[in-house]
Amino acid sequence: MATPISLDFLTSTLREIHHLRDAAAVLSWDQETYMPQGGGAIRAEQLATLQTLAHNQFVSPEVESLLGTFLDIETGTILPTHLASLDESSQALLRETWRDFSRAKKLPSTFVNELERECSLAQQVWAEARKTNDFQRFLPNLERMVSLKRKEAEYLGYTDSPYNALLDTYEPGSTVAQLRPLFAELRTHLIRLLDQIRNSPVQPNTTLLTQSFDTTKQVEFGRQVLKQMGYDFQRGRLDLSAHPFTTSFHPTDSRVTTRVFEKDLPSCLFSCIHEGGHALYEQGLPAQHYGTALGEAISLGIHESQSRLWENAVGRSRAFWQYWYPKLQDTFPAQLGAVPADEFYVAINRVTPSFIRVEADELTYNLHIMVRFEIELDVIEGQVYVDDLPELWNAKMEEYFGITPTSDAEGVLQDVHWSFGAFGYFPTYTLGNLYAAMLFHQAKTDIPDLTKHIGEGNFLPLKTWLNDRVHRWGRHYSANDLIQRVTGQTLTSAPFIQDLEEKFGHLYQFPTT
Amino acid sequence: MATPISLDFLTSTLREIHHLRDAAAVLSWDQETYMPQGGGAIRAEQLATLQTLAHNQFVSPEVESLLGTFLDIETGTILPTHLASLDESSQALLRETWRDFSRAKKLPSTFVNELERECSLAQQVWAEARKTNDFQRFLPNLERMVSLKRKEAEYLGYTDSPYNALLDTYEPGSTVAQLRPLFAELRTHLIRLLDQIRNSPVQPNTTLLTQSFDTTKQVEFGRQVLKQMGYDFQRGRLDLSAHPFTTSFHPTDSRVTTRVFEKDLPSCLFSCIHEGGHALYEQGLPAQHYGTALGEAISLGIHESQSRLWENAVGRSRAFWQYWYPKLQDTFPAQLGAVPADEFYVAINRVTPSFIRVEADELTYNLHIMVRFEIELDVIEGQVYVDDLPELWNAKMEEYFGITPTSDAEGVLQDVHWSFGAFGYFPTYTLGNLYAAMLFHQAKTDIPDLTKHIGEGNFLPLKTWLNDRVHRWGRHYSANDLIQRVTGQTLTSAPFIQDLEEKFGHLYQFPTT
Repeated sequence: MATPISLDFLTSTLREIHHLRDAAAVLSWDQETYMPQGGGAIRAEQLATLQTLAHNQFVSPEVESLLGTFLDIETGTILPTHLASLDESSQALLRETWRDFSRAKKLPSTFVNELERECSLAQQVWAEARKTNDFQRFLPNLERMVSLKRKEAEYLGYTDSPYNALLDTYEPGSTVAQLRPLFAELRTHLIRLLDQIRNSPVQPNTTLLTQSFDTTKQVEFGRQVLKQMGYDFQRGRLDLSAHPFTTSFHPTDSRVTTRVFEKDLPSCLFSCIHEGGHALYEQGLPAQHYGTALGEAISLGIHESQSRLWENAVGRSRAFWQYWYPKLQDTFPAQLGAVPADEFYVAINRVTPSFIRVEADELTYNLHIMVRFEIELDVIEGQVYVDDLPELWNAKMEEYFGITPTSDAEGVLQDVHWSFGAFGYFPTYTLGNLYAAMLFHQAKTDIPDLTKHIGEGNFLPLKTWLNDRVHRWGRHYSANDLIQRVTGQTLTSAPFIQDLEEKFGHLYQFPTT
Repeated sequence: MATPISLDFLTSTLREIHHLRDAAAVLSWDQETYMPQGGGAIRAEQLATLQTLAHNQFVSPEVESLLGTFLDIETGTILPTHLASLDESSQALLRETWRDFSRAKKLPSTFVNELERECSLAQQVWAEARKTNDFQRFLPNLERMVSLKRKEAEYLGYTDSPYNALLDTYEPGSTVAQLRPLFAELRTHLIRLLDQIRNSPVQPNTTLLTQSFDTTKQVEFGRQVLKQMGYDFQRGRLDLSAHPFTTSFHPTDSRVTTRVFEKDLPSCLFSCIHEGGHALYEQGLPAQHYGTALGEAISLGIHESQSRLWENAVGRSRAFWQYWYPKLQDTFPAQLGAVPADEFYVAINRVTPSFIRVEADELTYNLHIMVRFEIELDVIEGQVYVDDLPELWNAKMEEYFGITPTSDAEGVLQDVHWSFGAFGYFPTYTLGNLYAAMLFHQAKTDIPDLTKHIGEGNFLPLKTWLNDRVHRWGRHYSANDLIQRVTGQTLTSAPFIQDLEEKFGHLYQFPTT
């Protein structure tokens, strides 16, 4: 066997480029958490410069030539002369780097600069527009953004639908043709379950969750949960932002944000658990591969599987609250001291049509995603005008949920995603739910007494299992391969639907069929 | 007259480079305020990449060629053919850009990278070393830093002393030969005044300042003062950090930090006013020149003149407290309700030898600077070993103040500066004091009833005057030229000494001579 060829030059070059992306991520984190309002315009310029530079350096002749040492730059095929001397991990690194390179190479630098600047600006306009419930204010930015993203799809190239080009950014390999039947089947089950729930004699009382809860104590409780989940505050932070998010500049600095409302206990609580799931993934990525594809998360769907697993499979389970509910009662004795654990458990699992995605229950959440998927597919395919979106949104809400938002702030303006150009992102949330159920089923098989551990507040076995099966691999495997490897199955909605049937069948006392 | 040649290509290139420096400044701000401890190592790498890139782009053939269009790149002389068509401001921009360019050009990229990485790392080690009073822990970093700075001086070139090369970074045109007599004369007066104060029958009681003061209220009070000074919180923030500082990413985003101790009222208060002075300068720089020399502060001495003017000439004056003291009493009624304004005024102006520079009174502060100036001059000239610094420090403290620090934390480890390579920085503090006195004398001449305005809490006339005379000019004038232009005089310690005589003569009831 030939002496292994060193990838060191390539990886150290990629690492330096990554520093620029990390710097941009720090600037974005700052923008969402602490930046004074006046700093917005120049921040957009600074971010555009950083991202453009990172882009230019990545598609530079230097990287091309370093990659070209190992593979055919047109096809990505590793050169036969090198194949034997490259271990599996090096091959994965080359495969994924080439994927990124060949995509980036298709985007002109001026386009990247324009897009980045618009992303930063539009996000700020969106935040104001949502605050003032003023879609018209956001409209010009959204129109520019749609036009930019359609252009991006043309640059990237696609089969069937331009939407596929964008979807592939977030969930490599996923297509409209794959999602449509998957979502259609899921939708049938969800609508059936939702009907059963609507017709159930049980209708949980959730007013206990909308009492007044001191916001500082809420955040402090969220912090405690994060700690116990295994989120390392020596390598992270918890801050407030308008929209909760996780960002990472390295496994040693992966941060989460939450938001907190005095009269909405679940909001802060579950966003902490949710973002904690994301952050455990980031903190669990292999630091030795930092800066390269092997140091990155596989896809948004897999990322979301981590947050959903913690938020729903763990955080909305009876076992979880067996441990945490007494602590929550101690934190809010006046509000919860007299509320039995069961009543609380039922309340946080109430299923009901609602306007706001991020506060939706784990069942209807996916219907929210389908609304967005259908709309953004039409938008990117040019089937609808952007200024018709509020109307279209409301019509879909009526169709799916039987309710119509009374304002755009609780309708089409609610999500940050489109403001930063993230078309093709929403489906990954539902994919995340499906992956999460598959993974959690497997975890229960692999970890003896997992539910018992959770009931005792011991999250280490689950965290360690996720570290081992998912996090430490970076992009070594594709989403499909990883799921197949860990669970022995390809993507399926069966475990997810099974979980919903069991949980809500029990909770809402479905008639036994 | 020829058509003016556009500097647009040059300025837009400089602006993009500045985005990288601003990004680095955001990362540094984050490092000092919110970064989790674990993120330190990678942060050093990220900063090194950004600063190296900025350096490389600045000394690139592109900038050289853009500059070369207008001037002789070897000497900086503007080409005679262009001279007539360039207005004064364009000429100033070229002069200052060339100054920066020709200095930067002398530093190899690898050196810049090494220095930047060491700066970020050493600063973190220093913070730990100070916390644990462990000079030995910091020693290897300090030794590396000294060796790097001596190397930098060699790269830059100098006459007389390598220290001049470093000093010139912070205070262009300043030299050891200029500082020595200036400091010697100042020292004579300071020692004389200090003797008179020591022998005075008046010895203020400062225990009123070391009562217990709620830290949140202290910071809130500092915030109120900053607001009233004219610091715009829409374009800035106030946060906490180990060492108070001001940083700016643009006039629309200029931030200050403070620190707060429960039993030390002046610390937070005066650091807010001090940093506020710096920040007004940054917020007052001309945004249209952002990214170029004309959008930057002249020198650290002039920068410090702004902070000192506000901290001492304004913030420690009777007039200032005429307005603010009742408000401070309202904030801390239990602690200050029964303390007369005069007693408070005397306490915050107490002159006494002390260990910590940043908490020194406005007189002995300059002796602290002289201690550092003498030591760092010796260090950079290679007259002393770095591991002898604790001993040398303590000896100088004994010589100047008659007191010896009991720990390195309150001795040689107290300042952050050397940890980020800022040798040649300290003298600018005393220069700032001298400039501040010169400017404030002039302000009193130019603004009718200035003291009365201050006594009424109206800081707008002073802020506007500083905006107009100092801030808006950026680096259009050199420090000398600006001071000459505004005050009609060249640098002199006379107004500063006069102020000290008057203030402390009155306060400590010196015998009339």
